[in-house]
Amino acid sequence: MTETTDTVPGWFSREELDAVRDRLPILYVNAVPVRIDDSGAVTSVGLLLRVAPNGEISRALVSGRVLYHERIRDALLRHLEKDLGPVALPRIPVSPQPFTIAEYFPTPGVTPFHDPRQHAVSLAYVVPVAGDCQPRQDALDLVWLTPQEAAGADVQQEMSGGQGVLLRQGLAHAGCLP
Amino acid sequence: MTETTDTVPGWFSREELDAVRDRLPILYVNAVPVRIDDSGAVTSVGLLLRVAPNGEISRALVSGRVLYHERIRDALLRHLEKDLGPVALPRIPVSPQPFTIAEYFPTPGVTPFHDPRQHAVSLAYVVPVAGDCQPRQDALDLVWLTPQEAAGADVQQEMSGGQGVLLRQGLAHAGCLP
Amino acid sequence: MTETTDTVPGWFSREELDAVRDRLPILYVNAVPVRIDDSGAVTSVGLLLRVAPNGEISRALVSGRVLYHERIRDALLRHLEKDLGPVALPRIPVSPQPFTIAEYFPTPGVTPFHDPRQHAVSLAYVVPVAGDCQPRQDALDLVWLTPQEAAGADVQQEMSGGQGVLLRQGLAHAGCLP
Amino acid sequence: MTETTDTVPGWFSREELDAVRDRLPILYVNAVPVRIDDSGAVTSVGLLLRVAPNGEISRALVSGRVLYHERIRDALLRHLEKDLGPVALPRIPVSPQPFTIAEYFPTPGVTPFHDPRQHAVSLAYVVPVAGDCQPRQDALDLVWLTPQEAAGADVQQEMSGGQGVLLRQGLAHAGCLP
Repeated sequence: MTETTDTVPGWFSREELDAVRDRLPILYVNAVPVRIDDSGAVTSVGLLLRVAPNGEISRALVSGRVLYHERIRDALLRHLEKDLGPVALPRIPVSPQPFTIAEYFPTPGVTPFHDPRQHAVSLAYVVPVAGDCQPRQDALDLVWLTPQEAAGADVQQEMSGGQGVLLRQGLAHAGCLP
Repeated sequence: MTETTDTVPGWFSREELDAVRDRLPILYVNAVPVRIDDSGAVTSVGLLLRVAPNGEISRALVSGRVLYHERIRDALLRHLEKDLGPVALPRIPVSPQPFTIAEYFPTPGVTPFHDPRQHAVSLAYVVPVAGDCQPRQDALDLVWLTPQEAAGADVQQEMSGGQGVLLRQGLAHAGCLP
Repeated sequence: MTETTDTVPGWFSREELDAVRDRLPILYVNAVPVRIDDSGAVTSVGLLLRVAPNGEISRALVSGRVLYHERIRDALLRHLEKDLGPVALPRIPVSPQPFTIAEYFPTPGVTPFHDPRQHAVSLAYVVPVAGDCQPRQDALDLVWLTPQEAAGADVQQEMSGGQGVLLRQGLAHAGCLP
Repeated sequence: MTETTDTVPGWFSREELDAVRDRLPILYVNAVPVRIDDSGAVTSVGLLLRVAPNGEISRALVSGRVLYHERIRDALLRHLEKDLGPVALPRIPVSPQPFTIAEYFPTPGVTPFHDPRQHAVSLAYVVPVAGDCQPRQDALDLVWLTPQEAAGADVQQEMSGGQGVLLRQGLAHAGCLP
């Protein structure tokens, strides 16, 4: 999963968290940001453009850690605002039921999802955004693609850690997997 | 299920539809209208007040038939606007996955749901509404209740055909069943 | 959707049903039959081989109509036994919540699903089968494929009416979309 | 959530885990064990009988922690076998999609769920069991109740930490909330 620094002061120091990451699954949320029409149908999908420390550019979903004493809803809202800006107006789902659970293992191949740093278990949601989106923090840019483009081979290759699979699972759930 | 006349001209005459109703399951949608806060949590639940031909007053969910060549999304939108008015601004769910399927049988007791007129199979959704709601058509009024009130024994008794069960299933799905 | 004759005596004559099909959405179920291991993970996916009247061979999911006064669970069981034989031992899901609703329109392009004969609305489920499967009725054969094979371009091309999309939606829901 | 000792050797010492529990949400699974008929409909619900250190008796769902590098499926299987015995033959769901996420907060009232020891986030599943169940470990007994009994006021009062709510959410999802 793409590295993201939590904007809220951590309950752990970076060193402490690293120690825990070797021994406990860490809880995450993933969001597939979408634009929808009046009937709720997806018209486009938002993907973040990130630069890795080694200069590699990749596309990514919104993702981040759930903090101690933070509700899933609030973690979703916080990470969407962190990645898409303060006026993105995300419509957090009414139900806590995620469309899937993405299990990122430090060992590749256990599941379709991989995170070399940790065992992260992520609750995944499709989230419509109604406002203006301006990528913040470590994201270079945000691009809006049609579901067809998002599921295409080119985009899939530019996503890492299995997020291309997760994106297509989200499109399938939204009824717009091409 | 509460009787509702379709506002769009029927593809069947009333007599023809009655004949079909004896021999085919009829496809419906049900919506539980809710108000939500910024984090997507339900703050209140909307229930329609209806008067039956015999003068009995009951509370009901939004419901109605899916027409020939009509998408589920469009049927949901149409019935929400029919029951809550043109500026209710319902947020139709992104995913076609309903929270449950309510099977209304003409014979009581087969399922929790009962409709003496027909075998209706209803796709059920929780739908946030963001605008002003003004009940139209055959609804007397619309009341907004807390999830606690909506699940209470008093309200449950005023709902018929098993809609009290369906309402609680919707609250359970939304994480606010008291 | 592939034509299937209901094994239970119809409530409608073929002519009557054809007349209704022009004016009402018809309720269907679709099942993606799968083999699973002890942890519930999908190991293979079953696809039927059918011959169309014009001699064309296609692969298909289990599908069929819901009859008047028939529960969804019973329709699923009936069609699975019809297509996979009496000792397939299907494990009908506990929850009536389908993984998606496939809306087959007579007009191509409204949704990913198309059925020239009718407007069919299908509740779709992934169903593990534990017993011996022997295709019956109009199915030539049943093949078991890995999820990778099932989602591959070759198989997808041999499925019609959008069932290739529905199959991949089922794989996505089961967490095994490659 | 009821205290359960993990049967697999811990990756953390008890003291270390206690320290982490004050600062990180801990990932759990919850299972509602059910008996089903051939059509998948729930016939009865299994509840564990536990004795708290203070002698109080309570009824509980199957629950336990997800370990480092353990899949959700394997955690579910492990805890079901731990609580129901080695020949319970649980049918782990095909889909990783839980019916809800139960967020147990150390502070009462944030959600319906409460755990004084920790912030636990639990993925909840309804799991049919086909074999013989014999409660093990710290469970005194296992009782099988009808859905009506399980949702009744008496049983609800004997469940703690909000598990009565979670049980009813599971019944709602399975279509058997009375």
